[in-house]
Amino acid sequence: MKNPPRGRLFFANPGPTNIPDSILRAMQHATVDFMSEDFLEIYDACTEGLKRVLGTKQHLFYYTGSGHAAWEASLVNLFSAGDKLLIVESGYFSDHWAKMAQGLGLATEQVRADWRRSVDLAAVRAALAADTAHSIKGMCVVHNETATGATLPLAEFRKALDETGHPALFLVDTISSLGSIEFRMDDWGIDCAVGGSQKGLMLTTGLSFTGASEKAMAAHKASTLPKHYFNWTLMLERRHKSFIGTVPISFFYGLKEALRLIEEETLPGVWARHHRLAEATRRAVRHWSGNNGPALFTTNPARLSDSVTAVMMPEGHDAEAVRRTAYERFRVSLGGGLGPLGGKVFRIGHLGDLNEPMILGTLAAVEMSLAANSVPHAAGGINEAMRFLAETQPAAKAA
Amino acid sequence: MKNPPRGRLFFANPGPTNIPDSILRAMQHATVDFMSEDFLEIYDACTEGLKRVLGTKQHLFYYTGSGHAAWEASLVNLFSAGDKLLIVESGYFSDHWAKMAQGLGLATEQVRADWRRSVDLAAVRAALAADTAHSIKGMCVVHNETATGATLPLAEFRKALDETGHPALFLVDTISSLGSIEFRMDDWGIDCAVGGSQKGLMLTTGLSFTGASEKAMAAHKASTLPKHYFNWTLMLERRHKSFIGTVPISFFYGLKEALRLIEEETLPGVWARHHRLAEATRRAVRHWSGNNGPALFTTNPARLSDSVTAVMMPEGHDAEAVRRTAYERFRVSLGGGLGPLGGKVFRIGHLGDLNEPMILGTLAAVEMSLAANSVPHAAGGINEAMRFLAETQPAAKAA
Amino acid sequence: MKNPPRGRLFFANPGPTNIPDSILRAMQHATVDFMSEDFLEIYDACTEGLKRVLGTKQHLFYYTGSGHAAWEASLVNLFSAGDKLLIVESGYFSDHWAKMAQGLGLATEQVRADWRRSVDLAAVRAALAADTAHSIKGMCVVHNETATGATLPLAEFRKALDETGHPALFLVDTISSLGSIEFRMDDWGIDCAVGGSQKGLMLTTGLSFTGASEKAMAAHKASTLPKHYFNWTLMLERRHKSFIGTVPISFFYGLKEALRLIEEETLPGVWARHHRLAEATRRAVRHWSGNNGPALFTTNPARLSDSVTAVMMPEGHDAEAVRRTAYERFRVSLGGGLGPLGGKVFRIGHLGDLNEPMILGTLAAVEMSLAANSVPHAAGGINEAMRFLAETQPAAKAA
Amino acid sequence: MKNPPRGRLFFANPGPTNIPDSILRAMQHATVDFMSEDFLEIYDACTEGLKRVLGTKQHLFYYTGSGHAAWEASLVNLFSAGDKLLIVESGYFSDHWAKMAQGLGLATEQVRADWRRSVDLAAVRAALAADTAHSIKGMCVVHNETATGATLPLAEFRKALDETGHPALFLVDTISSLGSIEFRMDDWGIDCAVGGSQKGLMLTTGLSFTGASEKAMAAHKASTLPKHYFNWTLMLERRHKSFIGTVPISFFYGLKEALRLIEEETLPGVWARHHRLAEATRRAVRHWSGNNGPALFTTNPARLSDSVTAVMMPEGHDAEAVRRTAYERFRVSLGGGLGPLGGKVFRIGHLGDLNEPMILGTLAAVEMSLAANSVPHAAGGINEAMRFLAETQPAAKAA
Repeated sequence: MKNPPRGRLFFANPGPTNIPDSILRAMQHATVDFMSEDFLEIYDACTEGLKRVLGTKQHLFYYTGSGHAAWEASLVNLFSAGDKLLIVESGYFSDHWAKMAQGLGLATEQVRADWRRSVDLAAVRAALAADTAHSIKGMCVVHNETATGATLPLAEFRKALDETGHPALFLVDTISSLGSIEFRMDDWGIDCAVGGSQKGLMLTTGLSFTGASEKAMAAHKASTLPKHYFNWTLMLERRHKSFIGTVPISFFYGLKEALRLIEEETLPGVWARHHRLAEATRRAVRHWSGNNGPALFTTNPARLSDSVTAVMMPEGHDAEAVRRTAYERFRVSLGGGLGPLGGKVFRIGHLGDLNEPMILGTLAAVEMSLAANSVPHAAGGINEAMRFLAETQPAAKAA
Repeated sequence: MKNPPRGRLFFANPGPTNIPDSILRAMQHATVDFMSEDFLEIYDACTEGLKRVLGTKQHLFYYTGSGHAAWEASLVNLFSAGDKLLIVESGYFSDHWAKMAQGLGLATEQVRADWRRSVDLAAVRAALAADTAHSIKGMCVVHNETATGATLPLAEFRKALDETGHPALFLVDTISSLGSIEFRMDDWGIDCAVGGSQKGLMLTTGLSFTGASEKAMAAHKASTLPKHYFNWTLMLERRHKSFIGTVPISFFYGLKEALRLIEEETLPGVWARHHRLAEATRRAVRHWSGNNGPALFTTNPARLSDSVTAVMMPEGHDAEAVRRTAYERFRVSLGGGLGPLGGKVFRIGHLGDLNEPMILGTLAAVEMSLAANSVPHAAGGINEAMRFLAETQPAAKAA
Repeated sequence: MKNPPRGRLFFANPGPTNIPDSILRAMQHATVDFMSEDFLEIYDACTEGLKRVLGTKQHLFYYTGSGHAAWEASLVNLFSAGDKLLIVESGYFSDHWAKMAQGLGLATEQVRADWRRSVDLAAVRAALAADTAHSIKGMCVVHNETATGATLPLAEFRKALDETGHPALFLVDTISSLGSIEFRMDDWGIDCAVGGSQKGLMLTTGLSFTGASEKAMAAHKASTLPKHYFNWTLMLERRHKSFIGTVPISFFYGLKEALRLIEEETLPGVWARHHRLAEATRRAVRHWSGNNGPALFTTNPARLSDSVTAVMMPEGHDAEAVRRTAYERFRVSLGGGLGPLGGKVFRIGHLGDLNEPMILGTLAAVEMSLAANSVPHAAGGINEAMRFLAETQPAAKAA
Repeated sequence: MKNPPRGRLFFANPGPTNIPDSILRAMQHATVDFMSEDFLEIYDACTEGLKRVLGTKQHLFYYTGSGHAAWEASLVNLFSAGDKLLIVESGYFSDHWAKMAQGLGLATEQVRADWRRSVDLAAVRAALAADTAHSIKGMCVVHNETATGATLPLAEFRKALDETGHPALFLVDTISSLGSIEFRMDDWGIDCAVGGSQKGLMLTTGLSFTGASEKAMAAHKASTLPKHYFNWTLMLERRHKSFIGTVPISFFYGLKEALRLIEEETLPGVWARHHRLAEATRRAVRHWSGNNGPALFTTNPARLSDSVTAVMMPEGHDAEAVRRTAYERFRVSLGGGLGPLGGKVFRIGHLGDLNEPMILGTLAAVEMSLAANSVPHAAGGINEAMRFLAETQPAAKAA
């Protein structure tokens, strides 16, 4: 055992995330018949609730699978071999979706971007405008890039499609934004929203889903990529309008409780809490950076993510050493750098079931781990976070 | 609420199945980093243990998904568009796999069978022998057909391949047999064994897996069906040698406990217990049938399943009415007839975490439900079950 | 391990009893401040709800302790050294309370009774009438004698006090009746009702309580038995009006859920369900007795308990052997004979979270255990129970 | 709801305390027969393990009850009406035990002490020496006074008894020290050690116990205080050698896990961890005090407690306001001042299942709450705590 065994593990990896006890308990449910009326009542209520969280009145398909399953399901249901996707580069995850699309037989065109500055909207607009033949069938955007800690302005992407008159489907990965960062599927004209259970919805890993617009449903009818497990048409023949095979009931007992918690706090309340805890984290990191210390990876202030902060190590210092100290001495689990960022970046997840002392305990452990590894930094980032939290009020709760 | 709310629900649907409290508790685990050494230690031990349950020393791939995901994963990893599969008809599930294969762009040839008598091995042998060009790339057999309550003799199918010198891959669905009915992947020359978490492994729904032989791995290399989420080659690049995307940690905490329970009882002990409870069930059904009552659906005595018993209603009587009474008056959840068997058959699942009073309480409720619906039957099936259980000893436990 | 390890243990010991999953989950609560408003809200609601179950609008004192703690608490709060109690003999538990009273320095007079026929009300009336000096300060009645399976008619005891004009306090042990058998503290003029968490309230063991009338409170003021941990006067100085020392919060999270379940079913619904399952049990036992088999211990039909049935073995046969078989072969835990009934009686608890298949599975195991031990009996008791349950309807649920 | 509803509540009240998930899960156990061999095996192992934690090879009696129950049980089992106890004043809890002793009919003599300086051993020695008639039958010491945050040197008290040749029984309350602070019953010649489940043993409230020496057992034989529920002699007649009435099984499933955790960490490891986190807390408080800020209540540095720190507010500032802010804005539950310390003191519990980020999150919330209430203090206490934790190593774990 590497991790010291006492006290609660502080899980500050950006997903999966902290699960409230009440959700873990709710998921611990004896088996029931997924076709029984008793279960269907809960199931249907969950579907209505999850649509409210997605901000849609259109279609919703669930899968037993992780977030990647939902991406794959969306692609195979919407497209045909050789169709071209415009992939907006955001970081590790946009690269991953591009690779997936290629593996499924789709063509991809990427709008390249510097990972720290985050993509230039003009480049997106240019790519769309250049495609006068409308060979691009879908534009894929990761709302919140978990690898870099950047959030992309979805409404602006919609505008780019509208202004260029481009008919491509608008596909969005909301895996690490839903239930944390403002997301409005219908208002923002999103055709396909891909989400998972294990982040802002505060469930375990294993349930994922696609919100699909009417336009997406029309595209689906024409799609010829081979599919069965993920096939929406087959799903629509079933009572649950989702799932090929056994329905994973425990997730719905959990989702019911998750939706209750979210609605108790209200969605704007959830977003505001995430913003506040994220800003406290950023204040700490900005302070540490003073002394040639570690800095915010994302340099575009308008794109800083409220669900995860990626921290760039100073040259010559190893992010993994900091993570190891945090984990092995202080029982805090941080995220590592993904892909090319390995060793250069560590990530602080601040999404899901989180509050002030949890993030402060985490930031304190990070600051101690920097010191323990002789990483240069301006000490006292924790005080900046505290100052910010003491001066600002949590979002007003719904009455 | 349709189901009366007090006392434990008797879940006698043939899967998902009863989950021991200790497994539900183990799955209720706070989030950890799936890359941490602490988790990997548990993960690796689970993999070793599950291989022992499968009876293989070859390869194992996990998926976040239900059993259908594992079937699809196996097909897309082993075959290429247009490849032909020989599907041995067993019932609803073999039909379903055929449909899936077709949906994925494969060709299928079915060995037809009467669902009650169960397939004739001579027909299988004939189909293989006829394929002198070896255009059949894989033969798919459902070990235990959950819809009809029949178990197919896998070793005989292997012999058919060997005797005809047919090189087709041997694919087996062990979803409703593994951990209930004797299964030996390597001994029986199975190339691809498809299993899921929610039956004999006594977990919730959401983890599934493929055991793959070296021969299957060779076939995989040549496979060109599009894939990403299920792609074994991509999986082998990862530390877990499985999963594209997030690893669903809670299943492994549960699997660790499930394997502990299975090894405590021993695999032969597990099989013997299932056989004994199944036989008690059959004695009850055979007795009921005396009076033009409901009868065992499977008429071939050598094929009767030890994990599920399908009961055929007498002409003119509705299986769904019996199920409704059992559920709404007696808090017993039976399985219904699938596909063409809807209304004609009800099914008693007797797999997973089950013992004598559980099956007897279930059988008593069935007998009362028959009476309540004026279904003709010889009363006293319960006594036959009790007589059998009183006269036989449970399997000796390991010391 | 003596008990075979698979499937759910059927717990048919008459208390503690089966705990619904939802209550076990609710009790699994992280620690909170028992003085916090958040907890007090739950606490106060529990107190109101438990008073409704007790049928009182008067006083309620809780203790961290088992049922015996509540009896001791009641005695030390109501009486002074040398005070005389009239103890109505019902069986093992009335004897125990007498012994307790003596151990605390009280005098006791017992109304003797045959344990099988149950006490004669005339004898009670005679004892009260004889006490013209009113030296008897309290009359103690066990509502439901768990050792013998007999329920005493409390309203008749009240009438005996009224008719003889006797001013003694009326103390009742409702430990194994509350939440199972009709109980009305205020309507029946009970001054002191002693209850516990681990029977009809379906919680774990460790919370007990006294319902106290105004008359009891007046008696309390005069009481001089030494006390502190159980001292009501000290309790009334505290916010919780109960508990000396730490408040055991987990019981209140459980109690909240227990009250929800009870109110969902309604109290009359709870009583009717217990009566129905008890009657099924009695039909089985009466049938078994036909062949010089085991018989109902309680011979007075008006006194048969709806929460536990004591079964008297035929001469020369050992009840413990039957219990051992039930436990070690069939995973059913029966109650043994208490005190002088050891080896002569086994007991079937049928209280708490119980339904038809649970009791039928239990009865089937008992019948098989009788057979396995060559205990003479008329086989087929299980069928009598089934016939009764099939012919009668469960209590109508509240809308 | 006063407490903001998201993220984990930081429970820094000095008891009950944080409960590890694994213990909460273990306690969530279905009902079993407390007389079954399966349970007795666990029970006996718990008793052996708890004796190791107590440091005794002598006697152990359990009660269903809270810590106060164990104190009362100890007194009624050891003494007779009018016996005199020497109560060493430590704070609120020693006062409480004195009051309890009086309520039970015992005489008390108190060695008075200033609560901040903690008792003078010379005064204890003087009181014992003065009692040449040996009318003092027992000396009662609270090992760790939870109200003031002071730990008394038990070995020195033993020496005082030995040096004065006083035969009084040595009674110790180890409720808030056991499993947190070094405690050695046999080595320190303690005759009666009173403990509870809800602090260092990390269980819920409701199980308490007495470790009793042979000398205590001899005294018990002569004791005449009335008793039944707590009567050791009656307990010794029972299989469990403890409990009058139902055995609270869930606590033993929890205790088994608690003992596993403690033995994994080793007792010296547990003590060292508590010391380290306590010292970090004290460094923060000492820093805050710099600016006429709140200060350590206990002024005797040799007596500072490793399980709780009481913090004295500066004149004119309300401790309850600070607690309210911590709870209502920052989801941190602190302890309040008890008795005369109400409003003047708040208390930080740092016992049980605790680690670095938990205590740092708590200290950060305290510092923010001081600021929010304009309580004068030197900002930066959190940094002192971090510096100390970064510079020192956690106790080495057992291999």
